[in-house]
Parts: sequence; C-alpha cells; structure tokens
Amino acid sequence: MSEAIIAYLNQERERYVEELKAFIRIPSVSASSLHKNDMRKAAVWLSERLEQAGLEHVQILETDGNPVVYADWLHAPGKPTALIYGHYDVQPADPLEQWETPPFEPVVRDGKLFGRGATDDKAQLYTQVATVEAYLKTLGSLPVNVKFCIEGEEEIASPNLPAFVNSHAELLQADLIAISDGPMVSKDQPSICYGLRGLSGFELELKGPKSDLHSGLYGGGVANPATALVKILGSMKDEQDRILVEGFYEGVHELTEADHQAFREIPFSEEDTRKELQVAELAGEEGYTFLERTSARPTLEINGIYGGYQGEGLKPIVPAAAGVKLSCRLVDDQDPDDIFAKVKKHVEAHTPAGVTVSMKQSHRGKPFYISPQHPYIRAAAVAYEAGFGKKPVYIRSGGSIPVIEVFARVLNAPVVMLDFGLPEENMHAPNEYFQLENFDRGTATLCRFWQEIGGSQQ
Amino acid sequence: MSEAIIAYLNQERERYVEELKAFIRIPSVSASSLHKNDMRKAAVWLSERLEQAGLEHVQILETDGNPVVYADWLHAPGKPTALIYGHYDVQPADPLEQWETPPFEPVVRDGKLFGRGATDDKAQLYTQVATVEAYLKTLGSLPVNVKFCIEGEEEIASPNLPAFVNSHAELLQADLIAISDGPMVSKDQPSICYGLRGLSGFELELKGPKSDLHSGLYGGGVANPATALVKILGSMKDEQDRILVEGFYEGVHELTEADHQAFREIPFSEEDTRKELQVAELAGEEGYTFLERTSARPTLEINGIYGGYQGEGLKPIVPAAAGVKLSCRLVDDQDPDDIFAKVKKHVEAHTPAGVTVSMKQSHRGKPFYISPQHPYIRAAAVAYEAGFGKKPVYIRSGGSIPVIEVFARVLNAPVVMLDFGLPEENMHAPNEYFQLENFDRGTATLCRFWQEIGGSQQ
Repeated sequence: MSEAIIAYLNQERERYVEELKAFIRIPSVSASSLHKNDMRKAAVWLSERLEQAGLEHVQILETDGNPVVYADWLHAPGKPTALIYGHYDVQPADPLEQWETPPFEPVVRDGKLFGRGATDDKAQLYTQVATVEAYLKTLGSLPVNVKFCIEGEEEIASPNLPAFVNSHAELLQADLIAISDGPMVSKDQPSICYGLRGLSGFELELKGPKSDLHSGLYGGGVANPATALVKILGSMKDEQDRILVEGFYEGVHELTEADHQAFREIPFSEEDTRKELQVAELAGEEGYTFLERTSARPTLEINGIYGGYQGEGLKPIVPAAAGVKLSCRLVDDQDPDDIFAKVKKHVEAHTPAGVTVSMKQSHRGKPFYISPQHPYIRAAAVAYEAGFGKKPVYIRSGGSIPVIEVFARVLNAPVVMLDFGLPEENMHAPNEYFQLENFDRGTATLCRFWQEIGGSQQ
Repeated sequence: MSEAIIAYLNQERERYVEELKAFIRIPSVSASSLHKNDMRKAAVWLSERLEQAGLEHVQILETDGNPVVYADWLHAPGKPTALIYGHYDVQPADPLEQWETPPFEPVVRDGKLFGRGATDDKAQLYTQVATVEAYLKTLGSLPVNVKFCIEGEEEIASPNLPAFVNSHAELLQADLIAISDGPMVSKDQPSICYGLRGLSGFELELKGPKSDLHSGLYGGGVANPATALVKILGSMKDEQDRILVEGFYEGVHELTEADHQAFREIPFSEEDTRKELQVAELAGEEGYTFLERTSARPTLEINGIYGGYQGEGLKPIVPAAAGVKLSCRLVDDQDPDDIFAKVKKHVEAHTPAGVTVSMKQSHRGKPFYISPQHPYIRAAAVAYEAGFGKKPVYIRSGGSIPVIEVFARVLNAPVVMLDFGLPEENMHAPNEYFQLENFDRGTATLCRFWQEIGGSQQ
C-alpha cells in the first residue's frame, strides 16, 4: 500500500518544490518587528495548504505573538494520535551580502533548494504535510490520527507557546509528538536524536558616559563601557574554555566511559568538519571530542557584541555604551532560569565602577532527553532504514527546541524527532539550503513511520 | 589701533556667523569615502573665503588624499612669519539619532552654534580667518607675516600631511606655527596648552569559521572570534587599569611631586565633570587625578567593537568574525610605531587557537611639548588676558594633533596653541557646538597676539 503513496509523492514532486518555493518567498522573520505582516501571511498560506491536503478543523489560533496554525485528521479510531509540531518562522537573513542568491528568492542548484528557512524548518515541515496529503489523496485515510500545531515564534524561543499549549492542552492532546526540525548526522547516515540541549539567552547592556566622548580629552579618566564589557566577558571563561560562572555546571552529568564510547561509535570526521568550517583547528573545552562538546556539554557563547564606532576608519572616542548578546546551551538538569540568575550574579559582581549594567533574559528552553529504547524511537529506526536504506545511529544534538520540553511535560507524551536536514545546510547562516533528495527519503520515512505507529498499537 | 579692528569684527559679526554656518553645512567627513566630493567643496569654499579676506597666493594644493588650502600675506618685512594651521575636515556624525538638530544643518541656540565640526575645527579656524581679515580691511596690513595651511585629513590622522610639509618646506617656512583647534580649561578660564598626547590607532580583526554558524550545532566545538577578541582585549589591562602590554610604559616620564602640584593648581572640579558626564564615578589608572589621567598618562582605549548579530532580538550563532578599533594616547617619549609593534606582539601572543588575526595601524602621531617659558607662549598669555580679561593657566591636553610634531620637526619652529573651544562642546560627539561668545573673545585674543608677536621681535 505504501507503493501507491510513494508513486503519488513522486508524481507530485515538481508541484511540491514549487509550493515550497512559494512558502520560502514569504520572509517570515520572527525576530524583526518589520516582518509582522509576513508572519500572518505565512500562517494563512500554511493553513490553506493544510486544507488542500485534506486536513480538517484548520484554524489560525491567536497568541500574544504570532499565531499558531492548527489542523487535524482524526478518523483512525483506536489508533495513536500524533501531534506534528513545526514552525513557519525563520531566522533573520543577515549578513545579506554573504548570500549567493537572495534569501527570499528560492532557487534550486544541484538538487539543493536555497533560501532562508529552507531546512529550518519550511522544507522539513513540508515533508510532514506532503506525506499526510499523499496518504489522504491515495488511500483516503491515515494509519494514525494526526494533529498539526505549527507556530511562528520558534526562532525567538517560542515565548508564547508554553501558554498556548497549556490553554489548548485538550485540543493538542496526543500519544506522541513528531517533529522534523533538525539535522541528521550526514547525507548518507540517518540518525535519531534522543537528546537536545536547552537554551538560556541574554542581552546585556553597559552604559558609561552620557554620550560618546573624545578619547583624547576624556580617555583614561572615565570608565569605557566596551572595556568594562570585555572585562566582564573575559572573566567568564578560563584558558581551557571552562565556564567560570559560579555553579554553572550544577546539574550537568559527567559523561561516563560508556557515554564516551557511544560517541566514538557515531561515524563522524572532525577533520572533515574542520575543513568544512575552514578553520586551522577545532577548539573547545578540554577533555571532550567535537561531538561531545557540541551536544553533551553546556556552552556560553557570544552571539553578538557591539559598542562605539563601527564605520570606516577610526573614530577616537570613549563609547557611551556597549552590549552583548549571549546564550548558553544547556544539558541534563540545567535550568535556563537558574543559569540566567547565575550569569546575572556573575555579571553584577564583575561590573567595574563607573558603568551601569542592565541584563535581560530573552530565550529560555530546558534540555530534552528520551530513551533510545522507547517503542516509538524503535519505530522511527525501522522507518529510517526503509526510507534511507541504512540503519540510523542514535545521537544527541547540540541544538535546542525549547518547546519540546513543554510538549513533553504538558501533554505528557513522548517526543520523536524525525530529522531530514543536514549539518552542512547552513541553518541560521547565509546560503541556507535543503537537499531535495531528502524530501523524497524523508516522505518515504514518514510514510513508513505512520504505518509502524498505526500497526504497533491499537 | 586694535579698537578699529575690534569694531570691525563686531560690525561684521552677523555675517561671520552666517558664513560659518555655510562652512558647517558642507559635510566634510574625511573618514568616509562617500564624502569625497564634499572635501573638495569645503576646500574651494575656504580658498574663496581666504581670497575675500585679502590674502594672497591662495592655492588648492593636491596631496595623495584631500587637498591642502594655502594662502599668505607677506608684507611685514623684518617681522616674524606665522604659519596658521587648521583643518576643514570633520568627524563622522553618527550616532545620528542622538543629535537634537541635524549635524549639517547648523543652528544657533542660546548663543551656541550647533553642528558637526563647529568647535573642531571650523569655528576656531574661522577666528583666525576673521582676525586676519579685520586687520587687512581696517588697517590694510598685519603686524606679522601670515601663511595659512589648512588640511582636510586631520580627523583621519593626517596621513598625507607629513609628506606635504616635507615637499613644501620652503613654502611653509615660518617662525612660529599657530593653531586654534582645541579646548580651553573652561568658559571663564583661558588656558595655554603646552603639551599634547600622541596617538597610535589600530584596527584588529579576528576570523573564525567560514560563516556564522548555528550555535546549537557548533557551539562549544569551534573557536568563537568574539570570545577570542574578549580574551585578547581582557589581557591588556589589569584591575587597576594599568596596561599590561610589555614595554608599554617605556618612555613615559613618571610625574614628579612638582608636576602633581602644577596639576593641582589648575582650577578644575572632578565632581562637575562627573556630573557633566552623568556617571556614578570617574575611573582610571590608580594614583592619578582625572587631569593627570587624561593628559599626562598614556591610554589604551576601545573606540569600537563589533562581531556577530547586532539586530533586534537574539540570533544564536557562533559569529564568523569580530573586530575592534583601538587607540593609544601617548605621552613624553612614547613612539606610535613602537607602540603599534608592542600591541601587535601582545595580540599575537594572546590569540587563541582556531582563529586568525589581522591588525593594521590606522593612526600615528607623536606626543608634543613646548616650554611654558617660551617668548611666544608668554605673548599668548598677554593676548589671552587681553581677550578674556583673565590670566590663562598652563595645561597639557590629552588630545592629539599628530601634525604638530611634524611641523615642529620639519619647519623647526615653535608651535603655539591658541585654543578657543570648550571641553563641554561635544567635540567628536553628537550635538557638537561652539560657544559664539568665544568667537569675540578669540578674535580679540588673536588681534592682540599678532600685535605682541609683531612688536616683540623685528
């Protein structure tokens, strides 16, 4: 029976790519208030698309921020209900000058669909939509019940989704949550992610004198906020890249020898990664491999720093202000609010005289973990092998999908990640793309996954 | 005889202010290549103005950068020849949003002329032009010979003026160099500056991975250039604001008790300065007062810092690059090229693995000193007392006019600073202005100064 579905998907492939381009053309950048209208445009586009796919109860549900798109198909009595989560918002596209083709003018080159949001998350979300459509258009039914819940604020850390999930817990109730919003290990190696890092993001601003000052007349006699910022940030890490914020590592489970061994078994080349990133060497916390550093260890990262004159030439001033955008990736039992409090305390203790500091938390998400032995994870393994012709490996990912923890907790259901992206697809970076071959493999995987889930329970 | 000149200056005052506004309206920002045409426009405007003032041999002389405006009046045989130096270029105007009125739309409020370049250096230069004109229009002659040499690259550290002075040494030959391009101690306290700090300015850029990376997938596993920058900059100063670059203080003369005493005698309120700058406390190198820190001690200052995402919200990335604009104010026998070499060595020694660093020197100027006992400085003291009704105090200034050292060395002539600006006039900052009362006091001072110089020698 899956042959008919696969045939349908192949036959409609060109239309899917064109639709996906139309979706990417909507610049749904949630971080910028300039794109407020585009957010709704993307939500409307998506709801119409879900309607065409044969889904029911399609609704645009309001939140205090961008709306959530909901749709369902609930005609498989006795079968599990899957909540398919995704997001229609995308990261900002800058630095624009580094894009080879404009971020919101999608184009296919060498089987890759380029455009902001291609892999994160528009094309991956679209594999879910297309698979459901293919089932409904060919068989008229699905082996499971499905609910779509697509938000528009994932890239700004889902500030309104926790409240939404809480207030719509009944509507969203499900037996599992399925998410396609991340990368596999590599193009020829499917993988199942059973852990994600959490995130605690902050913005910190230091203010010094009332305005920029002439550095000749005032330099040396008044605290420079950029220098103060450097001192504060410099105090946060030692030479071995260990984070010095007091209590930062509380709740982090030290990796056991078995854990190290499991990481060693993942096919992965640090040398290839080094070359891909074009750096002389990889770097990070002593005593850990690249994969461990980027998935099982917490971080404190400067995402952006600014202060004073940035234009052409030199302007010899003492700047009036300086700031930084920082974020911590968290693991195991670390808590984003607790980390914010600890970093804030550290910042306040290290702020020199003559400047004032303000700090706010802008992102929060708890770490996530599911046992690789869970029946739904096993079903995913069977499905990936069917879709990719190769057994998946089990990995933890360094990324964060803060809302996963909310879903798992509020809906009390396991989360299964069904990722079809690739690490090299420039997620959050210029020239983001999606390898279209994985659209075919991904829909084939999903097709089998729903069969497995539908057949494995009643 | 000076009464007639002063009367002329008073009578023409309104015209002078209007002309000055026209001068300020030309956005002659030397740091930006966008203003290339405005530089020439300012030079042409100025040359026409000097011609009208009665000066001769008015010429726009080319350099490898912006042109120099030259003019002279040489009909006082046996009298000293003064070279009047100034600059027609101005600092960039940003941050634009902090200006109460647009920087290049000059306006008078409460006797203050607001606009970019008002005090630095257009109005101060204009006191010189107006004084010479007043002499020539009333008496038909000056008590001295004068040559004007007005450049258009002072705000970018006069890269082409040393070569120009060398190749035009005969044309520029003079017995003294007179410069009006700095601030007095305060509105009611004229001062004579007998020392200036030097300047060595650098731009430093760190490159990490080929592009911005997703901080979840790569964070912790690759060197972050912003973090590396923070480490490098953090290593340059200790907790007492002492500069840790090896050999940095070589050539700095430790202040004697007599020096400290001379600084204490300058009427100056640290508390007023603190309030004016709107900071909780002043700060700086331990063991020195504000005036000492800002004029007799060297500095290492961050003028601008940048890296990664600076827009609205948070973008969780590992940035591909980060950079800083740094400058050192130098004193006594410190040498800008030597300081650049030392800072470069420090940067290279502190650059962490996984990033590459590039560094270039963008500004250089040696420190300057003249004895307060020099006859021309004494003449200036008499002139200030005549113009302001109060004896001047003797000060060192923290600012830098790199070309002063070039003039002093190549032309082998003493430099006399005749400053009519004020510290609070927002030089290099938003809302720059010039207190117009000092246009009257300044021209009166200059009027007397030329008399003193013309009479004191033959």
